[in-house]
Amino acid sequence: MASGMCGSILVTGSNRGIGLELVRQMAESPSPPSQIFAGCRNPDGPNAKDLKELAQRHQKLITIVCLDTSSESSVREAAKQVGSRLNNGALNLLINNAGINVPGTLSESGQKEMVDVFVTNTVGPMLVSKEFLPYLKKAAAQLGSQEMSCRKSAVINISTLLSSIEKCHTNFAFAPMYPYRVSKAAVNMLTRCLAEDLKSDGILVTAIHPGWVQTDMGGSQAPLPAEDSVKGMLKVFANLTEKDAGNLLDWEGNPIPW
Amino acid sequence: MASGMCGSILVTGSNRGIGLELVRQMAESPSPPSQIFAGCRNPDGPNAKDLKELAQRHQKLITIVCLDTSSESSVREAAKQVGSRLNNGALNLLINNAGINVPGTLSESGQKEMVDVFVTNTVGPMLVSKEFLPYLKKAAAQLGSQEMSCRKSAVINISTLLSSIEKCHTNFAFAPMYPYRVSKAAVNMLTRCLAEDLKSDGILVTAIHPGWVQTDMGGSQAPLPAEDSVKGMLKVFANLTEKDAGNLLDWEGNPIPW
Ligand SMILES: NC(=O)c1ccc[n+]([C@@H]2O[C@H](COP(=O)([O-])OP(=O)(O)OC[C@H]3O[C@@H](n4cnc5c(N)ncnc54)[C@H](OP(=O)(O)O)[C@@H]3O)[C@@H](O)[C@H]2O)c1
Ligand SMILES: NC(=O)c1ccc[n+]([C@@H]2O[C@H](COP(=O)([O-])OP(=O)(O)OC[C@H]3O[C@@H](n4cnc5c(N)ncnc54)[C@H](OP(=O)(O)O)[C@@H]3O)[C@@H](O)[C@H]2O)c1
Repeated sequence: MASGMCGSILVTGSNRGIGLELVRQMAESPSPPSQIFAGCRNPDGPNAKDLKELAQRHQKLITIVCLDTSSESSVREAAKQVGSRLNNGALNLLINNAGINVPGTLSESGQKEMVDVFVTNTVGPMLVSKEFLPYLKKAAAQLGSQEMSCRKSAVINISTLLSSIEKCHTNFAFAPMYPYRVSKAAVNMLTRCLAEDLKSDGILVTAIHPGWVQTDMGGSQAPLPAEDSVKGMLKVFANLTEKDAGNLLDWEGNPIPW
Repeated sequence: MASGMCGSILVTGSNRGIGLELVRQMAESPSPPSQIFAGCRNPDGPNAKDLKELAQRHQKLITIVCLDTSSESSVREAAKQVGSRLNNGALNLLINNAGINVPGTLSESGQKEMVDVFVTNTVGPMLVSKEFLPYLKKAAAQLGSQEMSCRKSAVINISTLLSSIEKCHTNFAFAPMYPYRVSKAAVNMLTRCLAEDLKSDGILVTAIHPGWVQTDMGGSQAPLPAEDSVKGMLKVFANLTEKDAGNLLDWEGNPIPW
């Protein structure tokens, strides 16, 4: 299957789960993008084995980048490194995928849990967007006359159905998760702010819910294999236009209310 | 004007701005509540002068409580102190009002700004709700047969129009404020989670936008005197019922979309 993606792409948290599958499907597509930067907070750790093997098989395409989205200095350092390797200094697509969850009923949640999850799930996407913004702007400027799209210049934030304040009453009992829900509602607001802020630069910003996916986070009860979720999302990404800026869609392209 | 409030009430951040006006109007009402606990993070500092004078005039009614909502230990200590003074151990209404804002364009916002504002505006209301929950539950149980209301047992989170993800495109250019907007969208999700979580206990949880108000935070351009905002909000509080649980209303009772 063609990934529909081209140009230079960065995926955060790409050493396992949805992030790894995103990199795999884009790399193995018959028409792959020109550069994939695979963010990973611990490239020498045991969790990076699969990503390293994949990168080994696609040496010209995939570059593993040390990137801990919860650390400002790591994000800055990664931006410098990626910047020095980008074709024409342009990044076409940033996928903010790295995320965490913790047990999260009210009694389980204190300041530490709330802040830890917020720092990775909300502040991380903000810092990465900010530090990679010069490259996203360059990509947008180079394709100035084109409509907004993921081929031109875009930021995708991986959110979740559980971010929907409107839908909370339908799924809270099943998944209380205060820190996670709060952090993902927050990343939706970030998405909307970035979409407003960056539209004059021609940069598209959209949030996406990958479905309930079979990963370490999603657990074994999840109905959706990562392969299907990512197939769906790549199709959605390929078709995003200006009208999707600042919105939350699911992996099949359906809108989710805030 | 009658405040319509009764029983025991706690207001956080009540030494200036909207919090101080809430305490003043409730205390000066012809039918005041039975106990007002006025949270203040620095009761001996210069910013507490007006609150101290007010408490002096209403000694039997107002108790100043040292309460820094950004500190878990301070919240716990305050809960202990208030608990020992509550009539029948019951708290009828908690108003999470304490809040901060910082300059907040993308380039001005780093991890520190995002976390600081989140800790006060989002985690604070969560911690206070959690630590005072036993007293709110007691109040709800004591008035078990009544419908949900602010007279029975309720948590009000002071949010803002700027928390609305839906409305972001209408006001972002005028007020970028990444940390503030993100923290307040997050407190809306907290509101909805608490509303779901606590409804079986008979506790009502609602978020409110006070309007753009003439306070240190609102600034001198704000159209609404604190007196009018609080008059409106107290009227709204007095009329809240089950149907308002988990919603965001403005100071005139109009719903605001997420
Ligand atoms: N699975 C689902 O059902 C589901 C549903 C809705 C939304 N989502 C969202 O989809 C995204 C991916 O989830 P997943 O299911 O693939 O989760 P996962 O299997 O737990 O993988 C999470 C990935 O994020 C990385 N990560 C965590 N913190 C990081 C940090 N500070 N810096 C860099 N990387 C970090 C992890 O790296 P390490 O290996 O180093 O820990 C890992 O690569 C998340 O944003 C999640 O919230 C998932
Ligand atoms: N003014 C507006 O136009 C407007 C509009 C929408 C929403 N709001 C919301 O309304 C609420 C009150 O705002 P305001 O206009 O009255 O603001 P303000 O005039 O700046 O007063 C803020 C109050 O919160 C207290 N506070 C801040 N951090 C605290 C902490 N960690 N622990 C305890 N108290 C703390 C302050 O205490 P110190 O004196 O010790 O700093 C002060 O009493 C806030 O939640 C704000 O976001 C205001």
